[in-house]
Amino acid sequence: MIVTIIGLGLIGGSLAIDIRKQEIAMKIIGVDKDYKNAETALSLDLVDEISNLNEALAEADFIIIAIPVDQARVVLNQVLDNINTNTVVMDVGSTKEGICKSTEIHKNRRNFVATHPIAGTENYGPSAAFSGLFKDKLCIICDPEKSGDFAIAKTEFLYRTIGMKIIYMKSKEHDLHAAYVSHLSHISSFTLGMTVLEIENNEKTIFELAGSGFESTVRLAKSSPDMWAPIFEQNSEHLSQALDSYIKNLKYFKKLIDMKDTVKIHAAIKQANDIRRILENEDLMIEKIK
Amino acid sequence: MIVTIIGLGLIGGSLAIDIRKQEIAMKIIGVDKDYKNAETALSLDLVDEISNLNEALAEADFIIIAIPVDQARVVLNQVLDNINTNTVVMDVGSTKEGICKSTEIHKNRRNFVATHPIAGTENYGPSAAFSGLFKDKLCIICDPEKSGDFAIAKTEFLYRTIGMKIIYMKSKEHDLHAAYVSHLSHISSFTLGMTVLEIENNEKTIFELAGSGFESTVRLAKSSPDMWAPIFEQNSEHLSQALDSYIKNLKYFKKLIDMKDTVKIHAAIKQANDIRRILENEDLMIEKIK
Repeated sequence: MIVTIIGLGLIGGSLAIDIRKQEIAMKIIGVDKDYKNAETALSLDLVDEISNLNEALAEADFIIIAIPVDQARVVLNQVLDNINTNTVVMDVGSTKEGICKSTEIHKNRRNFVATHPIAGTENYGPSAAFSGLFKDKLCIICDPEKSGDFAIAKTEFLYRTIGMKIIYMKSKEHDLHAAYVSHLSHISSFTLGMTVLEIENNEKTIFELAGSGFESTVRLAKSSPDMWAPIFEQNSEHLSQALDSYIKNLKYFKKLIDMKDTVKIHAAIKQANDIRRILENEDLMIEKIK
Repeated sequence: MIVTIIGLGLIGGSLAIDIRKQEIAMKIIGVDKDYKNAETALSLDLVDEISNLNEALAEADFIIIAIPVDQARVVLNQVLDNINTNTVVMDVGSTKEGICKSTEIHKNRRNFVATHPIAGTENYGPSAAFSGLFKDKLCIICDPEKSGDFAIAKTEFLYRTIGMKIIYMKSKEHDLHAAYVSHLSHISSFTLGMTVLEIENNEKTIFELAGSGFESTVRLAKSSPDMWAPIFEQNSEHLSQALDSYIKNLKYFKKLIDMKDTVKIHAAIKQANDIRRILENEDLMIEKIK
């Protein structure tokens, strides 16, 4: 089949690499409104050719939308307006409720599959793309009952072939969980970066004192503003709730520290430690890579 | 020389491995009040023998105190009371002002060197120890003018031989910077763990949705409560100030998200992104590993 990828950043570019590697497509067409991105993707051999949106639509059997979530909604509707009967379209954005709502009554809704492959790094752009980004990771398909069977089958085939496990969720439920488990991490990390930059006027001090602990906690603060600002806006209700809980817990921690109550600080840390049991649960891990 | 290591956890154990590897000591004696830890360290061949504190002191030329910072103060004073004239003692704790104050007027203060090797992982105990933990990392020596030249020379020789670069700081200044660049990261991570555990009753959901982003931001939440509760208590004034700034910035972020002000969210993320320029600064990096 012919695959068109709209948006040749980390996700679009890495999908292109693995789609070619697994011989899923006979041709990969790249579309990117940023001319430089498109050129880089072509020169890195991520795609076979660069085209404009209309031409790429006419030819494609499978269309992947991998652009920031605010633009994805607009482009998805343009795409659905103009596709052939059997063409499948999927997006890969980190918020799902809005995009699902925006296509709810579209006549070609069944050609669309709302997906969120849980994979990424703090780097972005076509040169950040690499093979294996999706291997043994999880992909969430939202509201699958709204998609046609043919669309789900093609999408799942693609994701499974590049190594992903698939689960299903309601788009609203997805956004709530994503607020806590993914988006909140990003805000805590952006804010940590901001706070340390504010106080430490001497950059050399930050650099020298930065152990692997700080580097890991602040890693996400390097993430793309073009990608993340629209995600926060689209998931603002859930995120606001998550931030309220996070700030409440921080204030509790601060109170214990102000009181130098080591017994309760110890207990709070112990409670947080439970995250290890969950993240390193071997039974779940075996299930995840099945 | 004969080295005694008091506390056979991640730091003490990893020091033991590299001290032996670099042939710095003709014998390494381990002391640990936890009998199981001591046994594990011996069976893993981290130390040559296990002894009690008094016997280990009598024999040692170099004593390393690698126990939680509350106990370190007490043990350090006991050690200084009982050492030979030329024996050097160093601690490796993450807070420095308190321990320096507690020994300020000790008659053997010049035998003591206050150090903080900036290295570690979220794991703990003797079985978490590994070779190379300290390589190309930074070690801070605090208030060096309070230590004798012989003590500084021996300590620096040890750290340099296992691959560390050394810088100097006032202990008070150290604790302020550590509050922002290290201790705050730990609290943000513990609190993130707590918050996600609170909302996500379904452990499987956390596990499945946890991308590499969440895992990296929450990694420090796995850290030892025995180690961290006393650090937070000892650095409570600076940490309280750091937490105030962090909470203030989080509230600002939350306000922008509530207002769906993508322009300002974008600007705030851009500001946080500056951490990349500092952490990946090649000029500083070259200087760091020199």
